[in-house]
Amino acid sequence: MDRLLGKGKRLLPGLLNSVAWYKKQQQSCRFYCHPRAKRKLMSQHFQSMNLQEDSMGSQSKPGEMTCKSQRLMLLLGLICPANPGCYHYMPYTVRSMEKLIKVIDREMQAIGGQKMNMPALCSAELWKASGRWELMGKELLRLADRHSKGYCLGPTHEEAITDLIASQGCLSYKQLPLLLYQVTRKFRDEPKPCFGLLRGREFYMKDMYTFDASKEAALQTYALVCEAYCNVFNSLGLQFVKVQAATGSIGGTMSHEFQLPADIGEDQLMMCENCDFSANVETINPDETHCPVCRRKLVKHKGIEIGHTFFLGTKYSSVFNTTVRTSENKPVPAEMGCYGLGVTRILAASIEVLSTEDTIRWPNLIAPYLICFIPPKKGSREEKGAVLLENLYDSIAEAAPQVAEEMVLDDRTQLTIGKRLNNAKKLGFPYVIIGGKKVLDEPSLFEVHNQSTGEILFLAKEAIIDLLSKVQTP
Amino acid sequence: MDRLLGKGKRLLPGLLNSVAWYKKQQQSCRFYCHPRAKRKLMSQHFQSMNLQEDSMGSQSKPGEMTCKSQRLMLLLGLICPANPGCYHYMPYTVRSMEKLIKVIDREMQAIGGQKMNMPALCSAELWKASGRWELMGKELLRLADRHSKGYCLGPTHEEAITDLIASQGCLSYKQLPLLLYQVTRKFRDEPKPCFGLLRGREFYMKDMYTFDASKEAALQTYALVCEAYCNVFNSLGLQFVKVQAATGSIGGTMSHEFQLPADIGEDQLMMCENCDFSANVETINPDETHCPVCRRKLVKHKGIEIGHTFFLGTKYSSVFNTTVRTSENKPVPAEMGCYGLGVTRILAASIEVLSTEDTIRWPNLIAPYLICFIPPKKGSREEKGAVLLENLYDSIAEAAPQVAEEMVLDDRTQLTIGKRLNNAKKLGFPYVIIGGKKVLDEPSLFEVHNQSTGEILFLAKEAIIDLLSKVQTP
Repeated sequence: MDRLLGKGKRLLPGLLNSVAWYKKQQQSCRFYCHPRAKRKLMSQHFQSMNLQEDSMGSQSKPGEMTCKSQRLMLLLGLICPANPGCYHYMPYTVRSMEKLIKVIDREMQAIGGQKMNMPALCSAELWKASGRWELMGKELLRLADRHSKGYCLGPTHEEAITDLIASQGCLSYKQLPLLLYQVTRKFRDEPKPCFGLLRGREFYMKDMYTFDASKEAALQTYALVCEAYCNVFNSLGLQFVKVQAATGSIGGTMSHEFQLPADIGEDQLMMCENCDFSANVETINPDETHCPVCRRKLVKHKGIEIGHTFFLGTKYSSVFNTTVRTSENKPVPAEMGCYGLGVTRILAASIEVLSTEDTIRWPNLIAPYLICFIPPKKGSREEKGAVLLENLYDSIAEAAPQVAEEMVLDDRTQLTIGKRLNNAKKLGFPYVIIGGKKVLDEPSLFEVHNQSTGEILFLAKEAIIDLLSKVQTP
Repeated sequence: MDRLLGKGKRLLPGLLNSVAWYKKQQQSCRFYCHPRAKRKLMSQHFQSMNLQEDSMGSQSKPGEMTCKSQRLMLLLGLICPANPGCYHYMPYTVRSMEKLIKVIDREMQAIGGQKMNMPALCSAELWKASGRWELMGKELLRLADRHSKGYCLGPTHEEAITDLIASQGCLSYKQLPLLLYQVTRKFRDEPKPCFGLLRGREFYMKDMYTFDASKEAALQTYALVCEAYCNVFNSLGLQFVKVQAATGSIGGTMSHEFQLPADIGEDQLMMCENCDFSANVETINPDETHCPVCRRKLVKHKGIEIGHTFFLGTKYSSVFNTTVRTSENKPVPAEMGCYGLGVTRILAASIEVLSTEDTIRWPNLIAPYLICFIPPKKGSREEKGAVLLENLYDSIAEAAPQVAEEMVLDDRTQLTIGKRLNNAKKLGFPYVIIGGKKVLDEPSLFEVHNQSTGEILFLAKEAIIDLLSKVQTP
């Protein structure tokens, strides 16, 4: 305490002695205190409220477009409707989103990305300078402050970051490539918000902006970011495709989308049976049936766009006068790229492609929790096994600290094991560990359900600890 | 990969074999690749650009109210101005903020808080129902969507959460207390935004809302959250005071503020020399000079509000018909509390009270990075020592993985050690380790500066590893 005050820090009159102050504070904070919950209990989770049969209803309005991920997320209380295209993200969803952000952070930082954070309010002036104030039309949510100054709520931040980097003076080639990114809430006034988190008016996006001194260097950076995007999707185990794409209102001269093939996808893709060629149908003649590269047949798919990359060239840097110095010390307009990952959309799209009609499946790496423990029903023959399952929980927490945060004990022992197992499967726990028929054997055997493989094994404590110690967490 | 697809998952036509698909993807992603940077290099950090003498200027406009934290954060490129009261948070600031959020998450979750996330757009209807649509006047940023439906950008979320919980049906007493919180960007159209992150129009806040079935239980929950707030500030080593406060536009019947005494504070506090009594002057007769509890003298202070708690009673739950069941199964309006921590304000306020006029000091636990390594200047007599310092860096990274992420190597070896040490001190690295005069001794001795204590020690590798292994990270 004292040490933190640093040299020369004046103490307050009336609080002359910081030790006395500290003690006083400690006393005034000594209130009634719940014991710190050591085990995470399902009965205390917001989600458990939403697992009663009688409250189950998909809540979609008549005539509304809906899809599997939206139905499941509403049904299980993972999201709750707020306004059209705006949802409350409930605790399990926030956990999953934070894990996904960790995965994204790791890959962005591995290629030198630096995380920053820009305001949601973007001044009309900047957007008028780029021409997008007009171009974006009704998709832009606009407002005026108390001084009647105009703003939009940023759907992306090309204007903001290009202006910001211009204000830093002319960057040296030694500082390039500069890769800045943020993970923030974005706004788009969709004409028809639908499909839950897939097409909303508020959503989280990771947007990255890159700056280089030449087109060649910028193309290398572009490839590097595309590779990091592949790493993100591969680590989630998502079966994505990278397709050539149109540049739309963002602009630039080259663009790719990362698409998750799905029946409800709103993008039309054409993919070659034979070679690497894949394209959003917007970029080719829609009547084309053969691959422009190898002339083999093209196959149609629908896709959900989960990532999008743009090579911008100097489109924005020339407007905002954002210059960098080449190795010959010559100032040139920055060659830029911009890159987006739909964070909340990746969550919903993963659920869309991995789940069955009534059971959520998440990519294991970003499941809200990894393991659900189900002790025997109260009053059952195995009731005494509850304490053995609790011991197992505590042993795992001790042996594998990275897994400790990932475990939930379903203490609703007034419910049957079957009912709770069903709940755990619906919510998409990758592992369920049950104190069932063999829990009172010598030694105790626990029923371990692996949702990814469908396997059910009866394992002793040591084998379970061994199994779970190897589980990957973000 | 296959395992994740799950049973019964149909493979796409044209992509019949998922192994072949996987390989194809891997190939199409094999681009030019920077080697993954193992050491974090100062020359690549955005901040290093802002440490040139010639770009140093406080950037405040003539006549603008300014303060130490704002000047330092602008000067060192930790924040950059965007719009009035809106700043870009640059990478070091985001690192510090994310650490602070970890500290807050830990304390909120220790008392059973569940993290969720609510939309920024709040419908005018809800705010009209509570009466705050009128009450808040020009502080509320308002807008209409493409269908002319009215919204505000939420400064707090009492209406939204109370309506949300009402939609969940009547909660059972077994699910109480329910503590939900979020850490999100909030909006307030301040008449005169000033003091950098201390009074902005966009800021990050942690807001928690609690639900109980009786006033007694709700008061226990209130005390519990206050205690968690004390824990947050104590773990940061901040010399705060908890004072009785006015309820303002939020309402309710009891309120406390957590204040950081500081000359630029905008709140007037009265604190007793003798007993626990402390109050915001708003809550007492401003001419009162003696403590209402013990009649001893009151001392005036100025404070920066960094946390605020409100006991709301049924103010909002009665409007939105949010009921809970008592243990006698009787439905009653929920007794609520709401609680705020100014996340970005805590960052700036910490800097304000801990820093000197030209050197930033952060609470150690949330410093952007913990350690700066400074190798000898290129061409100096000790130049060969650079590799020894790099070895030290790598050894620490291996021996103390939690510290590995916290280290930066200042590779700008064209600059003198003194210049770089000065930079590192300004940026507030808690530890600076220099390959200086004794780096070529047998064994090598490194110069270790501890900014908290002002100590400078010459230590060998093992002693440094030992020292840093014990450093606390969030």
